[in-house]
Amino acid sequence: MLISSPMSKLDFWYEFASTYSYLSAMRIEDMARNADVEVRWRPFLLGPFFKAQGWATSPFKEQVEKGRYMVRDMERICAVRELPFQMPDPFPQNGLYAARLALIGEDEGWAGRFSRLVFKEQFAGNLQLDDKTGLGDCLSAIGLDASSLMTRIETPEIKKRLRTQTDDAQALGLFGAPTFLCEDGEMFWGDDRLEQALDWQRSETNPAA
Amino acid sequence: MLISSPMSKLDFWYEFASTYSYLSAMRIEDMARNADVEVRWRPFLLGPFFKAQGWATSPFKEQVEKGRYMVRDMERICAVRELPFQMPDPFPQNGLYAARLALIGEDEGWAGRFSRLVFKEQFAGNLQLDDKTGLGDCLSAIGLDASSLMTRIETPEIKKRLRTQTDDAQALGLFGAPTFLCEDGEMFWGDDRLEQALDWQRSETNPAA
Repeated sequence: MLISSPMSKLDFWYEFASTYSYLSAMRIEDMARNADVEVRWRPFLLGPFFKAQGWATSPFKEQVEKGRYMVRDMERICAVRELPFQMPDPFPQNGLYAARLALIGEDEGWAGRFSRLVFKEQFAGNLQLDDKTGLGDCLSAIGLDASSLMTRIETPEIKKRLRTQTDDAQALGLFGAPTFLCEDGEMFWGDDRLEQALDWQRSETNPAA
Repeated sequence: MLISSPMSKLDFWYEFASTYSYLSAMRIEDMARNADVEVRWRPFLLGPFFKAQGWATSPFKEQVEKGRYMVRDMERICAVRELPFQMPDPFPQNGLYAARLALIGEDEGWAGRFSRLVFKEQFAGNLQLDDKTGLGDCLSAIGLDASSLMTRIETPEIKKRLRTQTDDAQALGLFGAPTFLCEDGEMFWGDDRLEQALDWQRSETNPAA
């Protein structure tokens, strides 16, 4: 009889305003389950990374052609995956409040459910990420106490924790989202590397797999 | 009996200094053949694109973390594909002469053979792309008249043609390499989109495929 070992883990670093993070958020749990890997949801903010590069905003705005291509790339991929997709207006949205909420969700086990709903509402329903009422509706929709949680994200403790998490992302060498970090530190960037990341994490934990 | 139609074409826009262009150059002909698609080799220079963004050089140098990740990503992919890989020193190399030669090769039908050899020598043998003797050796190795060709790339005609080709790339909305352009204008960017590009081109030409 095999004794089950602690579950292998993959860190999923994501930003709520990021289109490609949406792609990964919508499929990572199912794929990870099939690979016997546990997902750790790690929301952070990309804004400080852009500023550090001297950019005012997302590279998809700084580079017009790249931004136009990204929209088309998203449309094609979402069509194949049967995911709704429309670009939020304005883009990028401000993911600050959603990220603070997801941090609480990390502790309480609802980060995945909440994040998927927020992504879907943003990219299919035009939820404004800085709309506290809209975020509260997302919390209520998954059975959480919206008013209590919306108060908690204004506490210095949660604010500091998101700053620390974003600093950690920079210290780890991240430069974009989504980024997948295996337990041995191996890094994979972009939704199109999710399969590779899961393969890597699975074979690290169980070389015979 | 089926009457064969003119072969479906995919434009492969590449830059000799680009690591991900190397990946595509080494596999595109075999993949295209299987998809009944003809490859048109379209060398161009990325330097003017970087300048237009206000960057002094490649984004892989401008963004240190992204550059470090790219090397690791290349190492992993090349290991799976059994391709040799080491980063050229310095990086990025100057692809000017190689691109001019490949333009002549477009007309004469040897752009693919020449480009693959130059990529391989650069990323496995440390060929310096501005080394005219080394480039001449590549031409000789595939049975071409190196001294005559090395003279031709100094003519105003070829110099202008590469500038025009690079201007065309900008006019088409390219922003990086490799980029694949289907006959209907659909654009795919990055080696990891090559399969999608070939699928698109094939189904455009023959919707029943």
